[in-house]
Amino acid sequence: MKITYYLQQKEAHTNARLGKIKTNYGTFETPMFMPVGTKANVKLLTPEELYDMHCGIILANTYHLWLRPGEDVIKKAGGLHSFMNYKGPILTDSGGFQVFSLAKNKAKDITEEGVHFKSHIDGAPLFLTPEKSIEIQNKLDSDIAMSFDECPPYPVTYDYMKKSVERTLRWAKRGKQVHNNPNQALFGIVQGGEFEDLRRYSAQETVKMDFDGYSIGGTSVGESKEVMYRMIDYAIAYLPEDKVRYLMGVGDPVDIIEGVIRGIDIFDCVLPTRIARHGQAFTKYGKINLHNQKYKEDFHKIEEDCDCYTCKNYTKSYLRHLIVTDEVLGGRLLSIHNIRFLIRLTEQIRKAIQTNALLEYRKEFLENYQNKNVTKS
Amino acid sequence: MKITYYLQQKEAHTNARLGKIKTNYGTFETPMFMPVGTKANVKLLTPEELYDMHCGIILANTYHLWLRPGEDVIKKAGGLHSFMNYKGPILTDSGGFQVFSLAKNKAKDITEEGVHFKSHIDGAPLFLTPEKSIEIQNKLDSDIAMSFDECPPYPVTYDYMKKSVERTLRWAKRGKQVHNNPNQALFGIVQGGEFEDLRRYSAQETVKMDFDGYSIGGTSVGESKEVMYRMIDYAIAYLPEDKVRYLMGVGDPVDIIEGVIRGIDIFDCVLPTRIARHGQAFTKYGKINLHNQKYKEDFHKIEEDCDCYTCKNYTKSYLRHLIVTDEVLGGRLLSIHNIRFLIRLTEQIRKAIQTNALLEYRKEFLENYQNKNVTKS
Repeated sequence: MKITYYLQQKEAHTNARLGKIKTNYGTFETPMFMPVGTKANVKLLTPEELYDMHCGIILANTYHLWLRPGEDVIKKAGGLHSFMNYKGPILTDSGGFQVFSLAKNKAKDITEEGVHFKSHIDGAPLFLTPEKSIEIQNKLDSDIAMSFDECPPYPVTYDYMKKSVERTLRWAKRGKQVHNNPNQALFGIVQGGEFEDLRRYSAQETVKMDFDGYSIGGTSVGESKEVMYRMIDYAIAYLPEDKVRYLMGVGDPVDIIEGVIRGIDIFDCVLPTRIARHGQAFTKYGKINLHNQKYKEDFHKIEEDCDCYTCKNYTKSYLRHLIVTDEVLGGRLLSIHNIRFLIRLTEQIRKAIQTNALLEYRKEFLENYQNKNVTKS
Repeated sequence: MKITYYLQQKEAHTNARLGKIKTNYGTFETPMFMPVGTKANVKLLTPEELYDMHCGIILANTYHLWLRPGEDVIKKAGGLHSFMNYKGPILTDSGGFQVFSLAKNKAKDITEEGVHFKSHIDGAPLFLTPEKSIEIQNKLDSDIAMSFDECPPYPVTYDYMKKSVERTLRWAKRGKQVHNNPNQALFGIVQGGEFEDLRRYSAQETVKMDFDGYSIGGTSVGESKEVMYRMIDYAIAYLPEDKVRYLMGVGDPVDIIEGVIRGIDIFDCVLPTRIARHGQAFTKYGKINLHNQKYKEDFHKIEEDCDCYTCKNYTKSYLRHLIVTDEVLGGRLLSIHNIRFLIRLTEQIRKAIQTNALLEYRKEFLENYQNKNVTKS
């Protein structure tokens, strides 16, 4: 069985949707934030810790797993769920984003056939094509696979973006033709940068190919928030209501709220785990940095009303001590809090959708979140 | 209440003892291996993970906690148990070992009053005395505090060691005089290097001061195994039977067995967690290195009959992948296995003592452990 998306409710005053996604590894509600497990693990965390956070789905990176340990090792292990012992839904990206962002010295050669580039590990020459990306993902046996796309830098000219969008459409078609895993859904990706007509064209042509869901890419590559939100609006108008919509690489709390308001269902981002390893924690009043001297004797939790393992058990004083002394347990405990913070955010968003009160929720959230000078953070 | 040691059984053919230690934070059986939580955490692990491993007691480092966050912060937090949220017994060392091993550029000046040295963090001048060490440990509020001793390098002359032993005895006395925490036991430390008469003298004079327990120090600073075991024999002959005996800084599986046979009750060592972070795991056939290519498609557990979280859930193939790709979860999972391995070792030792079969147990263990070329490891 591939995934099934159930649209359950549309919010009265926005384009927000309440839904659920059924997979072979369980059902989860949307909107949902998806933690990133780059190399077949969400950094520092076990599957059980992710279940405890009510994590709906995680993402793993095809590019990294292709290089190490290799898709054939994971296939022999019985697929990615079995390899990493994760019993919930998994989405794999296409490898495209990593190829375009990690390729050594940015030396890459994009041809119609695929992309020639060098390994970020040892500089070895590599060649990734739409067919290869899908073949790897078929072997990884994730619940959701992504089409191989080009994610152009920002800014590029209209002409470059037009050619790129057209090539990405041809790549999507080629990938779909070779996709061969009856248990795996395949999503199409809308690109087009900041150009309204290219976003529309990309969305309409991708939808014509009838994917199991659609994602919007290239919105977080350096533009302002306003441009990002506009790009979502441009694309989402042409996506079908009965399919999942996934905004790639976005995980800032405010962006999640704005994305949901525009009709997005799932989000992924390395932000919560990356800032955790650098000593930062989300709070309803904004991010705090545990390196700060003022937490040295602060024996309160990060958030008194948070239900995560970290807030149930540790003070800011102790967490600061771990962060300041480079004890990795600190990054682990902050990762738990930050992921749970974003998942709780989506829980609160779902509740607000149910009562058609999402705009009020945004107003209240922004009032707190912007107010970073409060004493009791 | 201070700790109480109950001697339950003596093994028929060796000096091994079965006992238990009652503390304000729970009772545990001996012989026991004690994981090291240097900076108020056993690296990468939570208290719950330590409870799950049936960990009897952990060690924390006075020197590190004195520097960061400082003993007054921990006192304000309600003591070390509360600060790190660990609900089991904790032993703190005296800081002496770190002063003598970590002191920046080995620049230290040992006087009768105490030791002048430089911080390993920022080179700031520091002065640690027997009184200061005990005062810090009183504030940390651990269940067991250690006397401040000199741990001389190896080798030193007889004359140096004699003077050092005499000073350590004077330091032990000064520490005992200022010790002022009714909930905390205080242990004396036997030094004396490889010199039989100095070990005897150190043991006898330390015992005269009537501590709550005794440890044997300086046995693992570079000598051969035979010398180490001899030093234990020299000292232990003069330690009272009704008090705990603790062999400091020793955690190699074979050394634990040999120590128990000689009458040791508790052991500590960074070995299981340190080698874990470097990709090594204990097995009954010896240590294995997960970097090894041969584990790439090895879908067996590290040890099929191990009951640790790691062996219940992960294959060597997955653990190798985490280690090879520098994912810290790998070190975390191997730390769990390695600590549990040593605690299981002490469980098996206790069982062997009960049936007066410790020598047979050693024979069987060594036959397996030396045989590192077996295929099924």
